[in-house]
Amino acid sequence: MKFRVKLIPVRMDRFSVIMSQEDAEEIGVLVGDRVKLVYGKKSVIADVQIATGLIERGEIGICRTVTDHLEIGDGGEVELYPVSKPMSVEFIRKKMDGHKLTREEISSIIKDIVNNALNEIELSAFVLSNYFHGMDFDEIEWATRAMIETGEKVTFEKGIVVDKHSIGGVPGNKISLIVVPIVAASGLLIPKTASRAITSASGTADTMEVLANVNLSVEEIKEITERVGGVIAWGGATNIAPADDKIIRVEYPLSIDPKPQLLASVMAKKGAIGAKHIVIDIPVGAGSKVATVEKGRELANDFVELGRRLGLNVTCVLTYGGQPVGRTVGPALEAQEALKALENTKSPKSLVEKALGVAGTLLEMTGITTNGVEYAKQIL
Amino acid sequence: MKFRVKLIPVRMDRFSVIMSQEDAEEIGVLVGDRVKLVYGKKSVIADVQIATGLIERGEIGICRTVTDHLEIGDGGEVELYPVSKPMSVEFIRKKMDGHKLTREEISSIIKDIVNNALNEIELSAFVLSNYFHGMDFDEIEWATRAMIETGEKVTFEKGIVVDKHSIGGVPGNKISLIVVPIVAASGLLIPKTASRAITSASGTADTMEVLANVNLSVEEIKEITERVGGVIAWGGATNIAPADDKIIRVEYPLSIDPKPQLLASVMAKKGAIGAKHIVIDIPVGAGSKVATVEKGRELANDFVELGRRLGLNVTCVLTYGGQPVGRTVGPALEAQEALKALENTKSPKSLVEKALGVAGTLLEMTGITTNGVEYAKQIL
Repeated sequence: MKFRVKLIPVRMDRFSVIMSQEDAEEIGVLVGDRVKLVYGKKSVIADVQIATGLIERGEIGICRTVTDHLEIGDGGEVELYPVSKPMSVEFIRKKMDGHKLTREEISSIIKDIVNNALNEIELSAFVLSNYFHGMDFDEIEWATRAMIETGEKVTFEKGIVVDKHSIGGVPGNKISLIVVPIVAASGLLIPKTASRAITSASGTADTMEVLANVNLSVEEIKEITERVGGVIAWGGATNIAPADDKIIRVEYPLSIDPKPQLLASVMAKKGAIGAKHIVIDIPVGAGSKVATVEKGRELANDFVELGRRLGLNVTCVLTYGGQPVGRTVGPALEAQEALKALENTKSPKSLVEKALGVAGTLLEMTGITTNGVEYAKQIL
Repeated sequence: MKFRVKLIPVRMDRFSVIMSQEDAEEIGVLVGDRVKLVYGKKSVIADVQIATGLIERGEIGICRTVTDHLEIGDGGEVELYPVSKPMSVEFIRKKMDGHKLTREEISSIIKDIVNNALNEIELSAFVLSNYFHGMDFDEIEWATRAMIETGEKVTFEKGIVVDKHSIGGVPGNKISLIVVPIVAASGLLIPKTASRAITSASGTADTMEVLANVNLSVEEIKEITERVGGVIAWGGATNIAPADDKIIRVEYPLSIDPKPQLLASVMAKKGAIGAKHIVIDIPVGAGSKVATVEKGRELANDFVELGRRLGLNVTCVLTYGGQPVGRTVGPALEAQEALKALENTKSPKSLVEKALGVAGTLLEMTGITTNGVEYAKQIL
């Protein structure tokens, strides 16, 4: 059926088609159903939204993201017809009922997440099924690999690439600003991507942004790392493991962070950036994400096992998460405190020790030294 | 913070605010977060969407549904600030973790569903939690009552109000078009609301629409029922138990129909329309929704128990669902076949028998006769 395009002058992430109730009934689609829009040789799949008034019969409202994709303008004429759900919805149904998915099924789900082919209900069903039923290690490995494959990757021609990650949950944790310079000074490459604050007052990307631009592309991350040995960039400005951001968007309003997705999320980002040796900081203590040392060890074992399956050398350090790291919280104050530590002017001992411990672990893992903390202290 | 309104000329169900990435960062909100818009004495809660390009800083895009509500025009200036999630999201979290909800908690969730205060992720989480964890009978009763309370209700000043419902799943089931006239002719009131096709070729509302307008308001349903004893109207044109439609919108893309919600959905609609005696048709057989007689009996017991708790007299009839009812499928053919049965001209015996059985059950339940099928046959 042919429709006249009414351009909605905004850009939205999702591909949606707004149509009248009457037209939707005539072609037999409900809200959320999928239709294909065809214009010349271009086509997109979009989901149906119903608007009353203002969208006339024979007309569809589409936003600029869709018109750009189709290379069509306001008033142009497109062919529209209903299409069935992607296969991945069947695989999500399978997971909902507690069955283990195959590698191909997980790969198909992750691909459709990245391509915006799943609506929010279907995506929520996938995330919640994993929350309710968990994933086994095969599934976690396959999900991680699929998340790496569906995004941008960085390959360094020479040098040893390392990375660090903290699972978060403790305020004031600005150690990356100290660890990255130490590690870079040792001759290793550390292209660190970081997130902005979700629950804390300042994410590492927010803190770093006080000192430098963190909205870097993958090319810029690579170039800076090759030039000076390290960088701290905001992961959200890149297209590294993009499935992860979309999954987090579902977890966030529900305040959930299921372990399988935590593992896959961290390791996909590290794998995609080309890191071979990775230290993961697991703060343990009342009020942090991991309450007990036992839980911390369990999580550490899971990270190491996932690393082994992916061919990555992973070490976890359980750190004290019962109180903030250092004495400051918030972007500007944290950046200042980190700078002071780098200048060796009065800075909290706990902060410096934690940073030296993490940096030292990376130095030992890569065989640079057998006494990492001492070596790191020399560099600092 | 003040924003200039850019009117998006469509009407959408959800209240959304489209803003620039920069403004969202400045006020500290992410996609899906809630903000309050205030204009004079009017205010609405809306969720945040991010658009790149075209929405400038200091500007928000809102659709006509929102501008109408605020009584503001294009270019007007609103106050906008972030608000926290409604309490009901906490209750959904509680259900996600497998805990039983209280009456107040369920009532708060249903209210927020009806008011569009939950986003699709949160609503999906509620529906899926019920799918994974089930609901006990207290919860089902409370959900049903809340669904009735949050919608339009019909009260008949005199007469005995009855209703019938089929849980569906078998094609060609046009018996309502025969049952309603018989029951109405007996002096009972039967204000039947029906749905359009979801999985079948024709819903009862679609079939009836071949013969008469089914887009009736609650007032019209009441008036027609009082005048002629019965009516078949499309439930979707009314505001009866509106939570149900919104819940179904989540179930539909996932092809799920969890039993607690099936029970609550049916009984809420019947309760809201004022029915006191209700027959529920449960087609049993390969290919229908209920595969075995045991499962059918179990479901029947659940309907009767829920009815008892709500003060409604419920009888279930298990019917043969292994093949279509009658010989026609599709709106026009089904309407024709039903008319022929009413005119006593050659019509399939199985169709007439099923209709007489259901009508007869209602006649017996209300004490009109002790031999319902015979009595119904006389009327027909």
